Amino acid sequence: MTHPLFAKHEDTLKNALDAIASRGYWSPFAEMPSPKVYGETGNADGEAAFKAHLDHEFPLDQPSTGDWIGAEQSPFGFALGVRYPKADVDALIGAAAAAERSWRKAGPEAWAGVSLEILARLNRASFEIAYSVMHTTGQAFMMAFQAGGPHAQDRALEAVAYAWDELRRVPAGAHWEKPQGKNPPLAMRKRYTVVPRGIGLVLGCCTFPTWNGYPGLFADLATGNTVIVKPHPGAILPLAITVRIARDVLREAGFDPNVVTLLATEPGDGPLVQEIALRPEIKLIDFTGSTQNGTWLERNAHQAQVFTEKAGVNQIVVDSADDLKAAVRNIAFSLALYSGQMCTAPQNIYVPRDGIRTAEGHASFDEVAQAIAGAVQKLVADPARAVELIGAIQNDGIARRIDEARSLGHVLADSQTLEHPAFPQARVRTPLVLQFDAAKDSAKFSGEWFGPISFVIATDSTAQSLELAASLAARHGALTLSVYSTDEATIEAAHDAAIDGGVALSINLTGGVFVNQSAAFSDFHGTGANPAANAALTDAAFVANRFRVVQSRIHVAPREQSA
Amino acid sequence: MTHPLFAKHEDTLKNALDAIASRGYWSPFAEMPSPKVYGETGNADGEAAFKAHLDHEFPLDQPSTGDWIGAEQSPFGFALGVRYPKADVDALIGAAAAAERSWRKAGPEAWAGVSLEILARLNRASFEIAYSVMHTTGQAFMMAFQAGGPHAQDRALEAVAYAWDELRRVPAGAHWEKPQGKNPPLAMRKRYTVVPRGIGLVLGCCTFPTWNGYPGLFADLATGNTVIVKPHPGAILPLAITVRIARDVLREAGFDPNVVTLLATEPGDGPLVQEIALRPEIKLIDFTGSTQNGTWLERNAHQAQVFTEKAGVNQIVVDSADDLKAAVRNIAFSLALYSGQMCTAPQNIYVPRDGIRTAEGHASFDEVAQAIAGAVQKLVADPARAVELIGAIQNDGIARRIDEARSLGHVLADSQTLEHPAFPQARVRTPLVLQFDAAKDSAKFSGEWFGPISFVIATDSTAQSLELAASLAARHGALTLSVYSTDEATIEAAHDAAIDGGVALSINLTGGVFVNQSAAFSDFHGTGANPAANAALTDAAFVANRFRVVQSRIHVAPREQSA
Repeated sequence: MTHPLFAKHEDTLKNALDAIASRGYWSPFAEMPSPKVYGETGNADGEAAFKAHLDHEFPLDQPSTGDWIGAEQSPFGFALGVRYPKADVDALIGAAAAAERSWRKAGPEAWAGVSLEILARLNRASFEIAYSVMHTTGQAFMMAFQAGGPHAQDRALEAVAYAWDELRRVPAGAHWEKPQGKNPPLAMRKRYTVVPRGIGLVLGCCTFPTWNGYPGLFADLATGNTVIVKPHPGAILPLAITVRIARDVLREAGFDPNVVTLLATEPGDGPLVQEIALRPEIKLIDFTGSTQNGTWLERNAHQAQVFTEKAGVNQIVVDSADDLKAAVRNIAFSLALYSGQMCTAPQNIYVPRDGIRTAEGHASFDEVAQAIAGAVQKLVADPARAVELIGAIQNDGIARRIDEARSLGHVLADSQTLEHPAFPQARVRTPLVLQFDAAKDSAKFSGEWFGPISFVIATDSTAQSLELAASLAARHGALTLSVYSTDEATIEAAHDAAIDGGVALSINLTGGVFVNQSAAFSDFHGTGANPAANAALTDAAFVANRFRVVQSRIHVAPREQSA
Repeated sequence: MTHPLFAKHEDTLKNALDAIASRGYWSPFAEMPSPKVYGETGNADGEAAFKAHLDHEFPLDQPSTGDWIGAEQSPFGFALGVRYPKADVDALIGAAAAAERSWRKAGPEAWAGVSLEILARLNRASFEIAYSVMHTTGQAFMMAFQAGGPHAQDRALEAVAYAWDELRRVPAGAHWEKPQGKNPPLAMRKRYTVVPRGIGLVLGCCTFPTWNGYPGLFADLATGNTVIVKPHPGAILPLAITVRIARDVLREAGFDPNVVTLLATEPGDGPLVQEIALRPEIKLIDFTGSTQNGTWLERNAHQAQVFTEKAGVNQIVVDSADDLKAAVRNIAFSLALYSGQMCTAPQNIYVPRDGIRTAEGHASFDEVAQAIAGAVQKLVADPARAVELIGAIQNDGIARRIDEARSLGHVLADSQTLEHPAFPQARVRTPLVLQFDAAKDSAKFSGEWFGPISFVIATDSTAQSLELAASLAARHGALTLSVYSTDEATIEAAHDAAIDGGVALSINLTGGVFVNQSAAFSDFHGTGANPAANAALTDAAFVANRFRVVQSRIHVAPREQSA
């Protein structure tokens, strides 16, 4: 008996399985906020739904203390005023454990079917989620829609597909028959039951609450675990809407909605997170955030499988260029996009101090550095257009970091405060670009400066640039590495450096693909091979340990008589 | 270009892939030590090869301090006198890291091909390994041959098959082409490189050095890692022979033989193991042994993926029986086999204090307990036959544990010292069976008493037996659970208890299959779902995190022009 939700979404799942195998372009979720796809009133309805949350209680029929909690601030300059039910850890864990009893028995088809139905509903809520992402993360609307909506849904679907791909390879049963020479064979019937781990804890971040939160959430669900979603206190709403939709689907499908619950918090929730992360019932933890917190989880939450994405230093090696202008435009866009508040945004740009070869002849280090800085400044020259690219700064800590960084070295492009035409109170800063020298500034550029902060760094040679890139990635972590070169041998050397550093490589990006972007079903986001992440989104290792198999065996009559 | 060793063994690999998917009976390695399969002189040659090692140096052309080390004692009563090259940790890690550079570039087909060729050669050395296993572990010859030879090779092949099954799903490259409406599509060529973790450390045990050591060793090799094999100081020879064969194959195939090295030690090697286990270069650890050491690794070796098999309490629930005599014979055999020194051997046997239903009518608790004890005593009544079943006690600690246990409760079958007809100095003890009461003795039977020590425990009911079995497995770990019942509802309840305890269940074993036995390609050994092991032999989770994928991407011309 195929579960009806599995039957409903089986084609989508099949296409996703094909996509993760062939890794070409594919997505079932339209990335353009088009009225043709999302309905003529989709945008207006979504914005209205978002606005209806503001200054209201966000009801969820899950265990609650009766108090309400929440202190989200839009980076565009206003308090959201949304209040979520306050939950205590014991009650939430108790509810999740109780929900697990029937959920785990539902089996892989139900887990996949329910997960896929949740995703279909999330897709329909893409505008509501987009406005929620925008006003918690500071992303401009288009990115909030795409990364917070369809692209996050893609990453979730990818996790469901990987989970299913593993689960479908565990047979429900087997007939085992071992010949015994002249005696009758030994024959047994075996039964294999997929047993989820228990309760998963998803710890969200404040910049990409859905994109980074969905893979763990859906990997857990699709392998039969229950999930407690603990958003970053600064970006609760997008995940609260997600949890509400998940609970609706679960309830309609006849399951206890406490399979998915929300743990909303306010700033200063560190002790609470540490308390729940060490509870014996928590068997899976998915975390995106700081190296300090991620490493603490890896080293202390021994009872759980811990998946982390932490800080890293993303790097660009400039060796030579056929079209320097196009290269520089592409780099500048990557630096400006969402004010560098992407875990994939470049920070260190290495250029040989003797300059580089270009199609128009030699370009000095200063010419390259000025070209990058100039391209950044050009992108943000018009505030009205700039804010649609750079969005707002998520929190004051990042704004302060820009000020701190300004004094570190020679300023190539200074960070400006812009006034947002629509949100005058928005926290908007243009990117800061500094100049460093590898010979004396390595202490300054060896760690992550999260935000719109980047460094053009003079090196002795491309060989030194690659060596720096590989060793920094290996030691401090990195999610992206980019190289510009017209020389095949240098590109191969960059490939070797990427392998040594365990980091994904982009080569000669000059068009409409940016190093910050990672395409679901095709690009592995993170490798798990350097300190920036202990897992990749998504691969078999991300899902295979979220369930176990318990078998039974009993003698049965042999099918074949031995001679 | 298919690697020649991959081509040579491709059929075996294909059959193994079919076997892990269908999980029926299959093995390419003959389990009977038959001259027809292993050659007329196979046994004699293997014994001669074993004897040639005794009191000699065991040469290995790997980094060595120049000293020789080794203090193995045969449980059958003599010192082996084999001396192995002493290695220091720095030199071994340096050599493994150097070997990794070319090995990791060889790619999945070479890793699989070399692994399979090593296995083929190990199979030909099964007699030499059998005698080495016998005289380090204390196993009787037949078990030493089967479990130490072909069955261990099966488990290794299973790990290679799982590794290949994951690796083959990572494409070498992809063409990604994303439509851009009226503009030309974005097109990229992507390249995916499998990157091994680095150096694996395999920590062997003293009872099943090959059977428990091979899965980690071959999972590491088949995913491109190098491996340092650190046998238990009491059971070096079987793994030393294995390392020698692996190095021969590597050398012949043109690889640096230091892809596999041996770290031989003497008793008291704990500080050395802790030192190497924390080295940053060690990225994978496979451990079989005590809960104390395994838990230490899990909690401290944060730089590595740690796979452990630790202690557990295996249990039998007796509810009712169609054929009590057959049930009791089967149980007694499981208790006696290799003197209970199997991680799968039962320890706690729960019987309702009011007795059970049998085909011959009601049997009281005492009748069942006496029947089990009597069957054990019958099995070991004739010393010459007994020693071929119970083998020898691996070490003095186990012999002392028998003496310690004897005073814990009412003795149903006392442990006797037997004289081995062929080895008068052998340390041979028959099984000890005690009687406990669940109402007052739970502290005594809640931990593992490794060795030929078992308890028949009176419970209030089968429901209590199952509750005890599930909770003990969940809290203290277990690899096996066995139930005897003629009642379908009880069998289903046992199934639920097995899932709660995360332990494999065997039902009504009365014939030629014993609960201690786990068949490669069909039975998952361990579940990873209780404290006895954090992984199963073998499943996707056992291999998927032993490698990572590093990708690159570059623009190419679109294949299709958009309209």
